[in-house]
Amino acid sequence: MQTLHVELGDRRYPIFIGSHLDIQHLLKPYIQGKQVMIVTNDTVAPLYLETYKKALTALDKVTAQCILRDGEKFKNIENLNLIFDALLASGFNRDCTVLALGGGVIGDMAGFAAASFQRGVNFIQVPTTLLSQVDSSVGGKTGINHPLGKNMIGAFKQPSVVFADMNQLSTLPPRELSAGLSEIIKYALLGDIEFLAWLEGNMPKLVAGDEQALAEAVYRSCAHKARIVANDEHEKGERALLNLGHTFGHAIESYLGYGTWLHGEAVAVGMVMAAELSHLMGWISTEDLARVKHIIQQANLPIYCPEIPLDEFLSYMSHDKKVLDGKIRLILMKKLGHAVITEEFNVDYMKQAILNNQKKGE
Amino acid sequence: MQTLHVELGDRRYPIFIGSHLDIQHLLKPYIQGKQVMIVTNDTVAPLYLETYKKALTALDKVTAQCILRDGEKFKNIENLNLIFDALLASGFNRDCTVLALGGGVIGDMAGFAAASFQRGVNFIQVPTTLLSQVDSSVGGKTGINHPLGKNMIGAFKQPSVVFADMNQLSTLPPRELSAGLSEIIKYALLGDIEFLAWLEGNMPKLVAGDEQALAEAVYRSCAHKARIVANDEHEKGERALLNLGHTFGHAIESYLGYGTWLHGEAVAVGMVMAAELSHLMGWISTEDLARVKHIIQQANLPIYCPEIPLDEFLSYMSHDKKVLDGKIRLILMKKLGHAVITEEFNVDYMKQAILNNQKKGE
Ligand SMILES: NC(=O)c1ccc[n+]([C@@H]2O[C@H](COP(=O)([O-])OP(=O)(O)OC[C@H]3O[C@@H](n4cnc5c(N)ncnc54)[C@H](O)[C@@H]3O)[C@@H](O)[C@H]2O)c1
Ligand SMILES: NC(=O)c1ccc[n+]([C@@H]2O[C@H](COP(=O)([O-])OP(=O)(O)OC[C@H]3O[C@@H](n4cnc5c(N)ncnc54)[C@H](O)[C@@H]3O)[C@@H](O)[C@H]2O)c1
Ligand SMILES: [Zn+2]
Ligand SMILES: [Zn+2]
Repeated sequence: MQTLHVELGDRRYPIFIGSHLDIQHLLKPYIQGKQVMIVTNDTVAPLYLETYKKALTALDKVTAQCILRDGEKFKNIENLNLIFDALLASGFNRDCTVLALGGGVIGDMAGFAAASFQRGVNFIQVPTTLLSQVDSSVGGKTGINHPLGKNMIGAFKQPSVVFADMNQLSTLPPRELSAGLSEIIKYALLGDIEFLAWLEGNMPKLVAGDEQALAEAVYRSCAHKARIVANDEHEKGERALLNLGHTFGHAIESYLGYGTWLHGEAVAVGMVMAAELSHLMGWISTEDLARVKHIIQQANLPIYCPEIPLDEFLSYMSHDKKVLDGKIRLILMKKLGHAVITEEFNVDYMKQAILNNQKKGE
Repeated sequence: MQTLHVELGDRRYPIFIGSHLDIQHLLKPYIQGKQVMIVTNDTVAPLYLETYKKALTALDKVTAQCILRDGEKFKNIENLNLIFDALLASGFNRDCTVLALGGGVIGDMAGFAAASFQRGVNFIQVPTTLLSQVDSSVGGKTGINHPLGKNMIGAFKQPSVVFADMNQLSTLPPRELSAGLSEIIKYALLGDIEFLAWLEGNMPKLVAGDEQALAEAVYRSCAHKARIVANDEHEKGERALLNLGHTFGHAIESYLGYGTWLHGEAVAVGMVMAAELSHLMGWISTEDLARVKHIIQQANLPIYCPEIPLDEFLSYMSHDKKVLDGKIRLILMKKLGHAVITEEFNVDYMKQAILNNQKKGE
């Protein structure tokens, strides 16, 4: 087991990363009160709920559960309210703990509920998807969607502890595993060429679900995000680097309709586009671009998107939050493994990078 | 105009207190972005919305409004969501400002919306009831009710500025004015004998709506709360003093059904009960007790409640949040103008204090 400490001002919490974590032992110091509400969904509950209930009961805690329906479309205020209903119906008070057991959807909703119930109660996160392990574990973002926008309503809420158990990834659908690998590749491409080399060597193991390799990848990814977030807690600068591939990816997701492609899949193509534009700008070599495409393909992720009319693609891109005052800012690679936030690129090259990575007739 | 600065760690904000405040001039430094959402209700909107819209338009801001239905029963998640709907339908972004124009209900809901929209946007408070001026202006508590409990869901959110305009109190129903005076008397009784003397001299002016007297009372009250909250931001100790009269009052409110009596009215009787118990304990004199009753009556507030079966009264009292581990802690007066948090009182005297201040047959 590896332990990563996330340092954020006066808040500091550990992420325990390993396989078959001894949760009973590890949980103990992080729950002061008696009551623990486990928030999960109807896919994850049959798989892992019992384990957590048992561990908590052994710790002499009173547990209750709130089992939401599975899916991003249930990440809304109505389902958030079901968590409040459960907390209050169970007579939970301000000393209680909310434990999120599930992927990013559950983590975001349970975290927001923990931030808001009684104006803030203890929050513990058990991310059970690779994506949520490497992304939701660090940064404290929680929230819900609104019909008019994703993640529009929420809070910053740091967990008191995070458990990332690789063994739980064994039940994850392969497409979801690859979606998580997409964000892992992102960390390598934006700031760690050595990690990229490591991934190139270990990708076969990762896609096969090798728990030791996964743990190492999760550890390195969380460490990267933790460092970037700590440097820029309020999202003024460096944190934008985490959006490598996301402006392009956002356009793909929006055009196809959220849910058609997984976020990680759209980001994968987005990273290819960012790499291609960086190449056209003369910043990375043909070989570098090939390496980007290759690692993405090794992770069973797409390297091109369906055909999307350019004007629509561009308009979706500029709806993206990273657009300030009408100017598009992109995260591009000045060299492989070193991304920057920049407005200084050739717009025609950008268009070319988009078009080059679409597959006609799809 | 008087200005009170509330100091809370790295957050510091002014409360402007006066009559006919020059809001256009005063608002200017506190709104960086272009968009301002005014949240108000259908009672307050016809009275004051135009004034604020005009001032904001003169400042070159884009305004929109969200007019909720008036009443505590609308302080719920459905109406909170109407604020989010309005923000998103108007295309508001994370640089926007939410301005609460109304009493405590509007302040609590708009504040929670400001805390949660985009995980936090600028918040400005214009409390238009006396109660919200002296209570909601300081402390940063925001939130909504749940069918199973009041104020169960919310956030701590400090405003960037508060405007308390005495002129707006001219339209307030007299009962609501008195309810605000109840909390003002509380500040005097819990920690400021000199303020009590001042109130005794000025109560006729206050109930008549004298704006200068009201401004002084609001200033002193907010200063008291600010000092107490700053000493105890996380509600571990001293802040409980602010609950003088509230454990008894809570029982009265609960028994009668929320909304029958105003909160300030129930607290008024609660303060009499606390004073009577303090007297029975030998801590304050007969004359002191008479002074407490007199100032409360001067404010047109009740000094006794309807008959409530003692066992029910006690059971409602112990549902109160200030009960720790089954022991009732009360805020009592060690001397007049000096309250303490204590478990050291005679329970029979407590029962007697309750019974002595009920009116049989009501
Ligand atoms: N808070 C943050 O910082 C942050 C970061 C990234 C993404 N997110 C959010 O996270 C969400 C995406 O997260 P996600 O990719 O984990 O999606 P998800 O939570 O929808 O999980 C994907 C699917 O896998 C299932 N699943 C989860 N764990 C499983 C397991 N161990 N075995 C089998 N199936 C399992 C889920 O039930 C779901 O069907 C989005 O809502 C996004 O906005 C938040
Ligand atoms: N956040 C805090 O720290 C805090 C503190 C105390 C109370 N509260 C909350 O505040 C609420 C009570 O506040 P309240 O007493 O202001 O109640 P309120 O907001 O319901 O206002 C009382 C009534 O007066 C009306 N009104 C408001 N301003 C008016 C004006 N200028 N002229 C005419 N009518 C006007 C309102 O529409 C309402 O009908 C409760 O929900 C309570 O939980 C919060
Ligand atoms: Zn992402
Ligand atoms: Zn009160």
